[in-house]
Formats: sequence, C-alpha cells, structure tokens
Amino acid sequence: MAALLSDLATEILIPVAAVVGIAFALVQWVLVSHVKLSPEKQSAGGNKNGYGDYLIEEEEGLNDHNVVVKCAEIQNAISEGATSFLFTEYQYVGIFMVIFAVLIFLFLGSVEGFSTKSQPCTYSKDTTCKPALANALFSTVSFLLGAITSLFSGFLGMKIATYANARTTLEARKGVGKAFITAFRSGAVMGFLLAANGLLVLYITINLFKLYYGEDWEGLFESITGYGLGGSSMALFGRVGGGIYTKAADVGADLVGKVERNIPEDDPRNPAVIADNVGDNVGDIAGMGSDLFGSYAESSCAALVVASISSFGINHDLTGMCYPLLISSVGIVVCLVTTLFATDFFEIKSVKEIEPALKKQLIISTVLMTIGIAIVSWIGLPAKFTIYSFGSQKEVANWQLFFCVAIGLWAGLVIGFVTEYYTSNAYSPVQDVADSCRTGAATNVIFGLALGYKSVIIPIFAIAVSIFVSFSLAAMYGIAVAALGMLSTIATGLAIDAYGPISDNAGGIAEMAGMSHRIRERTDALDAAGNTTAAIGKGFAIGSAALVSLALFGAFVSRAGISTVDVLTPKVFIGLLVGAMLPYWFSAMTMKSVGSAALKMVEEVRRQFNTIPGLMEGTTKPDYATCVKISTDASIKEMIPPGALVMLTPLIVGTLFGVETLSGVLAGALVSGVQIAISASNTGGAWDNAKKYIEAGATEHARTLGPKGSDCHKAAVIGDTIGDPLKDTSGPSLNILIKLMAVESLVFAPFFATHGGIIFKYL
Amino acid sequence: MAALLSDLATEILIPVAAVVGIAFALVQWVLVSHVKLSPEKQSAGGNKNGYGDYLIEEEEGLNDHNVVVKCAEIQNAISEGATSFLFTEYQYVGIFMVIFAVLIFLFLGSVEGFSTKSQPCTYSKDTTCKPALANALFSTVSFLLGAITSLFSGFLGMKIATYANARTTLEARKGVGKAFITAFRSGAVMGFLLAANGLLVLYITINLFKLYYGEDWEGLFESITGYGLGGSSMALFGRVGGGIYTKAADVGADLVGKVERNIPEDDPRNPAVIADNVGDNVGDIAGMGSDLFGSYAESSCAALVVASISSFGINHDLTGMCYPLLISSVGIVVCLVTTLFATDFFEIKSVKEIEPALKKQLIISTVLMTIGIAIVSWIGLPAKFTIYSFGSQKEVANWQLFFCVAIGLWAGLVIGFVTEYYTSNAYSPVQDVADSCRTGAATNVIFGLALGYKSVIIPIFAIAVSIFVSFSLAAMYGIAVAALGMLSTIATGLAIDAYGPISDNAGGIAEMAGMSHRIRERTDALDAAGNTTAAIGKGFAIGSAALVSLALFGAFVSRAGISTVDVLTPKVFIGLLVGAMLPYWFSAMTMKSVGSAALKMVEEVRRQFNTIPGLMEGTTKPDYATCVKISTDASIKEMIPPGALVMLTPLIVGTLFGVETLSGVLAGALVSGVQIAISASNTGGAWDNAKKYIEAGATEHARTLGPKGSDCHKAAVIGDTIGDPLKDTSGPSLNILIKLMAVESLVFAPFFATHGGIIFKYL
Repeated sequence: MAALLSDLATEILIPVAAVVGIAFALVQWVLVSHVKLSPEKQSAGGNKNGYGDYLIEEEEGLNDHNVVVKCAEIQNAISEGATSFLFTEYQYVGIFMVIFAVLIFLFLGSVEGFSTKSQPCTYSKDTTCKPALANALFSTVSFLLGAITSLFSGFLGMKIATYANARTTLEARKGVGKAFITAFRSGAVMGFLLAANGLLVLYITINLFKLYYGEDWEGLFESITGYGLGGSSMALFGRVGGGIYTKAADVGADLVGKVERNIPEDDPRNPAVIADNVGDNVGDIAGMGSDLFGSYAESSCAALVVASISSFGINHDLTGMCYPLLISSVGIVVCLVTTLFATDFFEIKSVKEIEPALKKQLIISTVLMTIGIAIVSWIGLPAKFTIYSFGSQKEVANWQLFFCVAIGLWAGLVIGFVTEYYTSNAYSPVQDVADSCRTGAATNVIFGLALGYKSVIIPIFAIAVSIFVSFSLAAMYGIAVAALGMLSTIATGLAIDAYGPISDNAGGIAEMAGMSHRIRERTDALDAAGNTTAAIGKGFAIGSAALVSLALFGAFVSRAGISTVDVLTPKVFIGLLVGAMLPYWFSAMTMKSVGSAALKMVEEVRRQFNTIPGLMEGTTKPDYATCVKISTDASIKEMIPPGALVMLTPLIVGTLFGVETLSGVLAGALVSGVQIAISASNTGGAWDNAKKYIEAGATEHARTLGPKGSDCHKAAVIGDTIGDPLKDTSGPSLNILIKLMAVESLVFAPFFATHGGIIFKYL
Repeated sequence: MAALLSDLATEILIPVAAVVGIAFALVQWVLVSHVKLSPEKQSAGGNKNGYGDYLIEEEEGLNDHNVVVKCAEIQNAISEGATSFLFTEYQYVGIFMVIFAVLIFLFLGSVEGFSTKSQPCTYSKDTTCKPALANALFSTVSFLLGAITSLFSGFLGMKIATYANARTTLEARKGVGKAFITAFRSGAVMGFLLAANGLLVLYITINLFKLYYGEDWEGLFESITGYGLGGSSMALFGRVGGGIYTKAADVGADLVGKVERNIPEDDPRNPAVIADNVGDNVGDIAGMGSDLFGSYAESSCAALVVASISSFGINHDLTGMCYPLLISSVGIVVCLVTTLFATDFFEIKSVKEIEPALKKQLIISTVLMTIGIAIVSWIGLPAKFTIYSFGSQKEVANWQLFFCVAIGLWAGLVIGFVTEYYTSNAYSPVQDVADSCRTGAATNVIFGLALGYKSVIIPIFAIAVSIFVSFSLAAMYGIAVAALGMLSTIATGLAIDAYGPISDNAGGIAEMAGMSHRIRERTDALDAAGNTTAAIGKGFAIGSAALVSLALFGAFVSRAGISTVDVLTPKVFIGLLVGAMLPYWFSAMTMKSVGSAALKMVEEVRRQFNTIPGLMEGTTKPDYATCVKISTDASIKEMIPPGALVMLTPLIVGTLFGVETLSGVLAGALVSGVQIAISASNTGGAWDNAKKYIEAGATEHARTLGPKGSDCHKAAVIGDTIGDPLKDTSGPSLNILIKLMAVESLVFAPFFATHGGIIFKYL
C-alpha cells in the first residue's frame, strides 16, 4: 500500500517549499531595507506599505539629520561588536568542531575495527549494509554540515537583527504600527531563512548521501543523525557563550548604572551599554536561532532514524520516509500565510494591540497547521504501515500519526499560553510578585521563585499527555513527530521570538541617540510585548526539547540494542539519580560564570565613572570597547567548563559504565532538566515584567507601587537582575543539555554498544 | 545455618538497649534540671559537673534576680506558645489521622473483598497466611501507633528544648563551656528518647502482633509497614506546619524589625519575637524530630518487609530477621559513649572549640558504629542467607551486609562534611557569597543559588555509590540497611541538631532579658555553630530520605508484584516526568505560604509599631499573642494543600493509573526531590552564615564587608531572608514528600495491585 503522493511529487515539493521560504524571507528583507539609515533619502516618499511616508507626527528632532546619523552610528557599533564576538567564538568553536569530528570518526570507525567490508544490516538481517567505517565517515560529514548550518543560522539572525534595530527606532517616529511591522518583518526574515535553510540542507544531504548508500537506508539515516549532533553542539556554545555575554553586560550595566548612579537603562553614559546591546544579539538572537535549529534538526533526525528501520525504510517507501520533511515543508507555507496576518491583513494602531497581534500569530499558525498536518498525513502516508518499537514492529494507521503530530503542535500552544499567563503583567501571578515588592526584595524573590515552580505544573502535564498519546499510538516515532509538530510552526515562533530583542535594541538606540520620550515609550511598549513573547518562545523551546530528547533517547536505545531500561537495576538507577543532578551542576557553572563576569563588568564600569572626567555630565564618551572585551573574554572562557560537562558526560558514562547507565542518565537529565528550565525561564520573565509593571504604572495598583526609584521599584530591580541569568543563561541552556546528551548518545550508540561499559566488564 | 547470637539473646538485647537509651536520656535531663530557673537557689553550689558552681565571671546584672525571673518568664511564654500551637495542630492532624486510618482499613480490607478466610501466602505458596482483612486491621493499628509515637517524639523534643533554652542562657553567664554542655545535653535528651522510644515501640508492636500472626511473618511485617506510614505522615504536617510557622514569624520579624526599624534581632520591642522563638521549637525541633523518627521507622519497616520474604522470614530465623533492630540497638549504645566525649571526657573552653567538638561527635560516632556494625553482622547474621530480589532469591554473605550498612553510615558522614564545607563561613564558598554582597543583593542571590546547585554534586555521587554497592550486594534489602546505617547514629545526629535551635533560643532570651553583650556574644557563637550543624543534620535527613525512599520503593515494587519498571513504556515515563515535577509543585505551595503568612505578619508588626505608643521606646509591651496567633492560623491553614498533594498523589495515581505509573512517579519524585532539597537547604544555610560572617567580622576580609548596617550587610540580610523558607520549610519538607509517597504506596500496594489502574483498564 503506497501513499497518495507519488515519490516524484515528494522530491519536488520539499525543495520547492524550502525555496519559497527563502524567497519570502528575502522579500521581507527588501521591505525592511526600504527604511533608510542615511538622512538624505529620509523623505523619498510614495512607497507601498507606508515606507518612506512623510512622518506622521511632529517630534522634536524629527527632521534633525543628526538623529539618523547617530542611530546609524550606534547600529554600526552594535553590529561590529556582535560580529567580532561571534568570529572570536567561532575560532574556539571551530577547534572544538575539528576535534570532535575526529572523535566521531575514530569512535564510530572502531566499531568494526576500521574494516572496509560490507556487513549484514542490524535490522534487516538478510540484506547487506555499508561498512561501519563508511557510517563513521558520513556521520562526521553530516556532523560538520549540521554544525556549519547552525553557525550560519545564528550568524544570519544576528546580522538581520542588527540591521533591523535602528530601522525600527526610526520607524517608531512614524507610529507604533510602523515600528512593529519593521521589527516583526525582520524577525520573519530570520525565522523563514532558518526554517527553510535547515530543511534544504537536510534534504540535499540525504540525497547526496543516497548516491553512496543506495538501498542501505539503515546506514544512510544513521549517518544523518550527525546533522542533529552538529546543530545542537554549536547551539550549546551559542546559548552558553551568548548567554553569559549578554547577562554579564546586562547585570553589570544595571548594577552600576541603574542602582548606583541612578541613570536610565541604555543611557549612553553607561560604558557597558554597547556590550549590553551586543549581548541581546549574540545571546537572545544568535543563541536562540542555533538552539531552535538544533531542535528542528534533531527531531527530524530522530524521526528519520526510527522510520528507516520501520516499514517505510524496509520497503523503501520514499514518500512515507519523507513524512517528517513534508510536515516541515507545509509548516513553511502555513507560517508564510500566518505572517501576512501580522504585516499586511491587519494594521497595529495602538500600543494595546501589539501583544494580541503576536498571540494571534500563534493561534492562526496552530489552527492552519492542524489542517496542513491532516492533509500531509492523508496524502503523504499509506493507510497502514508498521513502526519499529523496541525490538518489534507496531502497526500504525495514517490518522494515528496525524494525532501524534497534532498533539505536539497543540501542546506547544498550551505551553505558550501558560507561559504567557505566568510571565505577562496582565495577569495576577506577575501582579502578585510586583505586590510582594512592598515588603522588599526578599519577598519579591520568594514569590518569584514560587511562581516559577508553580508554572511548571501545566506544561509538564501537557508534555506528559503528548508523550502518552503519541507513544501509545506510534511508539518512539510518535514522540519524534510530536516534537516536529511542536516545531512545525518554527518560522512564526522564531519571528515572534526575534522580534523581542530587536525591539529591545530599538529602545536602547532611541535612548542613546537622545530621541524624545514619546519614541522611547513606543519602543518600550514593543519591548514589553517582546518580553512575554520571549518567554513564550522559551516555553516552546523547552517543550520541544523535552519531546525531542525523548525521541532521541528512544532512537538511542533502539540503536544500542536495549529493549528495556529497568529502574530497578542499580546501573540504571544510579544513572537516573546522577542524570537528574547534571542540570544543577550545569546551572551552578553558568550562574556562577554570569555572576563573576558581571562583577568584573561592575568594577570596570565603576572605574570608568570614577576616573573619566565629564562622563556623568555627558561631555566625554565612555570607553565602550573595554566593556565589550570583558564580556567577550569572560564568555569565551566560561563557556568551556559547562560545554565540557555536557559533551563529555555521555562519552565518559557510555564508555565506562555502558548503555544502561547512560540510558538512566539521559532519562534523569531529561525529567529533571525540563523542570528547572521552565521554572528558571518563567521566574526570570515574571521578575522582569513585574518591574516593568511598576515602571509603566498603567493601573491603580501599579501606581501605588511605583514610580521608578521607589523602594518597591528598587526591590523589583533586584528581582529582575537575579532573573537575568536564570531566564537568559542557565534556563535556556538546559534545553540544549538534555537534547545534546541524547543526540550525542545516539550518534555514538554503536560504539557504546560494542566497546562501552569498561568498568562493569572488568569488575 | 544460624547466627551466633541466640534468638533469646536477641529478644533480650533489643529492649535492654532501648531502656538503656531512655535511662541515659533521663539522666541527662536530670543534669540539665540542676540549672535552676528560680533565683533563690541560684548559688546553691557544690554539685558535680559544675552545675550550681559560683559564677565564674562577674557580669553586670549577674546577681540581679530580676534577670533570672525575666528568663523564666520568657521561657514560659515560648513554651506556652509552642504547646498551644502543637495542640491546635494535633486537633487537625487527629482528624486526618482518623480519616486516613479508616481509608487504610477500607482500601486494604477490600483487596479480598473483606473476606475473613485465610489465604495462601503470596511468596511461600504452600503455606497459609492470615486474611487480607486482618492485614488491613493490623496495618491500621500500626499506622496509628506510628503516628502517635511520631507526635509524641516531636512534642517531647519541643518540651525539652523549651525547658533547656533559658537554662542555657543562664549558664552562658558562667562561660561558653557550661552553656554548651547544657544545650548539648538537652539535645541528647531528645536524641536518645526519640531513638530508644522508636525502637521500643516497634519492638513491642512486632511482639504483640506476633501473638495473632504466629508463623505468618509475611502478613506480620506487611502490617508493620503502617508504622512507617504513621510516623511519616505526622512528620509531614510537623515539618510543613512547623516550617511555615517558624518562617512566617522569622521573616515577618526581620523585615520590619531589622530592615525597617533597625532594631536588633530578638529585640523584645518586636511584637513577632515570641512567635519567632516559638517557631524554632515547633519547626526545627518538633518537625525535625518527627521527620527523623519517620525515616528511622520507614527504613526499619522497609528492611523488615523485604527480610520477611527472604530466607530470614521463610526459615523463621528471628535473630536474622531482627538484624535491623539490632543495628539500631547498637547505635544507641555507640551514641551513648559518643555523647560522653562532648559532655564529660573533654571540656569546651573557648568559642573556637564549639564547632570542632560537634564535628568530632560525628566522626567518633561513625568510627565506633563501624565497629558496632561489624560485630552485629558477625554475630547477628548467619554466614550465608538469601535475600528476595524482584522475583528471585539472591545469596548474600554476612560480610556483604556489613558493607551495605557501613557504606550508608560513611556516606552520611561524607554528606555531612560536604554540607559543612558549603554552609560554614570558615570556607571559601560562603566567603565568596559574602563577597558578592559588595555588588548588592542580586549578586548575593545569584551566587547563593549557584552554591546550592553546586553543593548537590558530591552528595549525589555519595548516595549513588552507596546505592550501587548496597544494591549490588544485597538488592533492595541492602539499600534499606544502608539507610539504617546512615540513621544508626541518629541519637547523636539529633542531639547535634537540636542543639542549634536551643542555642538560637538561648540567644533570643538573653537579648529579651536585657543581658549583657558578653553573654549575647557567647550565645551567638553557640548559635553560629548550630547553624552549620543544622545544615549537616538536614544533609543527613535528606541523604537518608533518599536511601529510605528507594528501599521503600523497592519494597513497594516487590509487594505490588512488578519485576521491572521500564522507562521505555509510556505509563512509566509519564509517571517519571510528573513525579519529577511534584517537588516543584510542593515547593511552590510551601514557599508561597511562607511568603503570604510573612506578609500578614509584617502588616501586624507594622501596625503595632505605628499604633502602640511607647513601643519603640521600650516603655510599652507589644502584643505578642496576636503575632503568635497569625503564625498559628497561617500554618494550620497553609499546611493542608501541600499535605493533600503528598497524601493524595499515590492514592490517585495508584487507583487511576496503576502500579507502573506510580512506580514512575516515585522514582521521578525521588531523583528530582533530593536535588532540590539539598540545594535549597544549603543555599539557605550559606546565606545565613554569609550574613553571620559579615556581622562577626572575624577576618580582615569580613571587616571590609561589614559592619552591621553597611550596604553589604543589608544585601546579606536579604539573602538570609530568602533562604529562610528554602532551608527551613520547603527544603526539609521535600524529604518527607519522597519518603511518604513511597511508604504510602507500599502500604496500599496490595490494593493498587488488585484494583488499581482503572483508567487503563477501561481505555
């Protein structure tokens, strides 16, 4: 029984969708570029979409070309700082990449003693597969491809964001709607480029590898798993390095600027202000881009590797095999339509409409995607097929896979909205936290921590239900496609997510360029909405990471030839216990790193304020470059130990203690890490917005707590500062910890299964 | 093959050890009572041990009878407050106890449809066991016995502590050594009464039950598990209720008194000061007493229930069966000798000797106990025997059990010392945290959280190694006796632990009675050492809880008839994920409760300061009773939801989803809860001691941060306040969460195995 969609159609559809995505991203980019950063073309006029319109409102300094020049200057400084940091990071990461590539080749090559002989396949015993050495080589190649694609995704995101931030600031002079569209379009450029690019590279790689592997799909898709590993390992360094960078600068700038010197955020007199803005781009943009690309690559790989040993792979059913890629292809088209709702079908007219507009994006994309999944499941799958499930084949119907993908998709939406509820200051949880500032910073922190803990409950139930349903319907393949479902609207998710830091930067540039308060108010409104969407984005990232890790874990277990992971054996239980500890160890490292780097930054900023005459008066410029260097050096140095912890743990545990203990470690890290990640991210988001709630003073209640500078506000600022490393460094990095350990175990599974467990062998 | 020790000798030895323990406790109590609280007998003189000696140092107010009268008054107020709270708590807990007893009877009685017929045994199929209805009845009885013993232990501890605190204050006038001995002896009274009492009641219960059960040891020891459940469920309410009480008062008192009004801690003008001191006794003393009694009862029950289906039980080898009780008996004797080292063999002469003296207690008891275990294992066990291990019998030698117990004991010591390293201000971690106060409260909190996360690493490895070794040697029985090993020196552990709050109270009384600064300095030194030992005690409690829960989990699994708990089945995995979430849910509740109760307390304290004329000047007395009432009401009300969460989860999961999912939940809660418990407790301890480090100003570095009232010190106070609910409410309650869910599952296992999993049955 074959799918309705022919193999040829599949082979055409996927690359076409990817190319359409890229084209759409370029169109958005062209539209953003219509906002000119050079003063003379400021009022060219007449373009569609309002770009180049005459400025709607008269502001002081509106026609002052100096403002535009200043914005362009600041943008350049930020862009240069970000580029230089990323290049420094890439040098170190490049060395790691080469070493790790060699390791992969050696470990996997040694499985059959570097023999070049073909061997019987593991799952279809009667057919012949390519030698383990070939798998080692191709895994290494796909690792490198994944790594490079990931770096490219992050870099591109950063470039677009730094291209867009000053333009958003300038558009804010025309109104909040214009600024919103510019920021959102730029986010969309990143979202679509990343999603389409990830799909295209994966598709091309599979087709190229097939030239060698031919009918050996088992080996082919085993090798492809390296793509996920490459993507995720770069994401690790991106998230950790970028996270330390951004928060060292942010915390350092705030502690001296806001708390000691009482100057506003993003004030140009603050020496750490450029480093802070650079940080948003390298941490929140480049780091997050790499992270979500990693999730996408990994869930595709997990689904493909399980499919290759199911009836799709055994019967060489290409369309069925490509089901995960078809889902992603439809996702691109759905997100394209969704984006038009934000940019073209409706127009934002007031500040209040921003957050609903972003939330509508999530709902629209989810609803449309549900239809998309139904169509793909109907035409892209045979009515019945079998899925490999820990040693046996389980019969599955196409409508069952539809439910697997759909439940992942909708669980994502639930997680998104719960995150919003706990982190937006429109609801009581954040308002309660703000209210607790009455009695000082201590109660603020106690309430904030409690909020984060509490916010874990519903997302965990949502994930548990998705796991139970998709696992029951289609075993580990079900989990993998559920993860893909959650990530299928990644282009929209990323657009929303990238929108936040762009708006944040736009506000910073407005402040630094000395633009009027009304402009700053607009960018602040954009930014506040961005805080919530950033939290939602993190919720998605964590939820999908949990599903992805479980799928990878399942693929690892299958590939390592284990059929049960029994908690009642000491090997597994101690793995579980130690695995559950790893997120704490990792968080301890990253939190401490941010703290230490921030202390250095504080000392430097204080030094500049104390020794540079005229700095506080604004007559002399601070030395931005030294602060940028402190953040760069600290983050490069400090990203190595946590990186080593994550990368070495599976290798050490697998080699010394074997696959059972490693299974325990993976399961423990997964179930423990996901909780800390969610709670850390939401606690931080809540503190940030509690502070903003007091600052904005939009309600009667908020005004009793404020204004800026009151004791309540000071307590709120302390909470916000504590939340910074939680929500932007340790929390989001934990996603990668759990995913990366799982995908690494999967790639090295043949080695561990053959040579692992040295200690138990000799005891 | 039988043990060297005859059954008759065993039957004599155990109660004799228990009685010796009780007698020793009474002797200590008599010695403490020699310190008179009525002024006229102040200088009776001539007693041994220096009690009643003429006062060594001349202090102002030394011979002032008013001071003694004042101390007695304050002590009475504290004692009355504590007694009244505990009686209120017992009323609510009593209702719960009755309802739950009925539940146990109904659930377990329904297993065989309330039939009064005897049935074939589960494990020895050829013999006949008593009807399930009898097991239901006796389980209910042992539940009530455990509950009452637990309440009695907590109450007794509180009575002794409140009896001792003012006496310690008065002895501080004679010197730090005298005060130390009084506080330590009182701690010992509690430790020995609790350990001996727990052993005696258990021993008598077993012997009484045996009158009915006769040769049916399977049923007998199944019923005995109710004892553990009773003990632990009371501990839950004690810990949670007491924890909320003490921290609401403490946080409330500090926020207004120290931060707003700038008056010292324990100042009599502070309306919440009596509530704060009452809290130490009901939370840290009564709660912890119940907690450790629960651990002790549970690990004994877990060992006994596994032993009953091993060769000991099958062959009716009484001495072998009583091995866990013999270990505890020897433990009492060893601790007795150890105590003499602190009170009689050496004398404390200066402040610096306090902490080493307490640490020596741990080392001496551990070394002596190792010898004790060796002797018991040699004479109390046959050379070879078999242990039940998930469906089969495993052959074990007596020396292997020695290793199981000993590794638990030594792992406890390791955990204790690691805890000390991370929470004592003699080492760099706490000093780094203190140093981070330079840049304010935010960095203090970031560093403190990172410290707590980091402090998890070594304890987890220590627990993992103990589990692996004892599990490999003697399956789940090995784990149970390892837990017993860790708890075998419980009398000493409790003595050290109770010493802390007693000293804390003594300092409070000195302040309130207006005694001189030199006295306050001495009690402060006692208190600082007590902070570290309290953290060590919590480390023990958590470590043993982890082992106990695992042993109970193993016993549950055995009794529920499961032979594997496979993470790769969706039922188990979702249980694991949700189980790992429960500690967060629970912590969210308890933290929020403390926060809300503290807010109420703050409002009341502020109200009194604002409305009672002459309060700040010290001319009018505050209204202590209202603050006591606020804490009482809040803690009674707020302990219900977290209590319900813990007590209902196993019932709901077991009934609706069945034993596999419940196994997952237990394993998940265990591996996740232990991490949060350790990190919360150590983070809180570190903040507390970082603050004390700055206040004491003992080193050059500390003096640069201080003095009291400096910005650094204010930042440190904020950290300390945040740490309060972490280290004294949510952290220690998590021990009970993981233990209690496990023991409850064990007791209800026959019901779940027969009628559980309704949802999956009908799906």
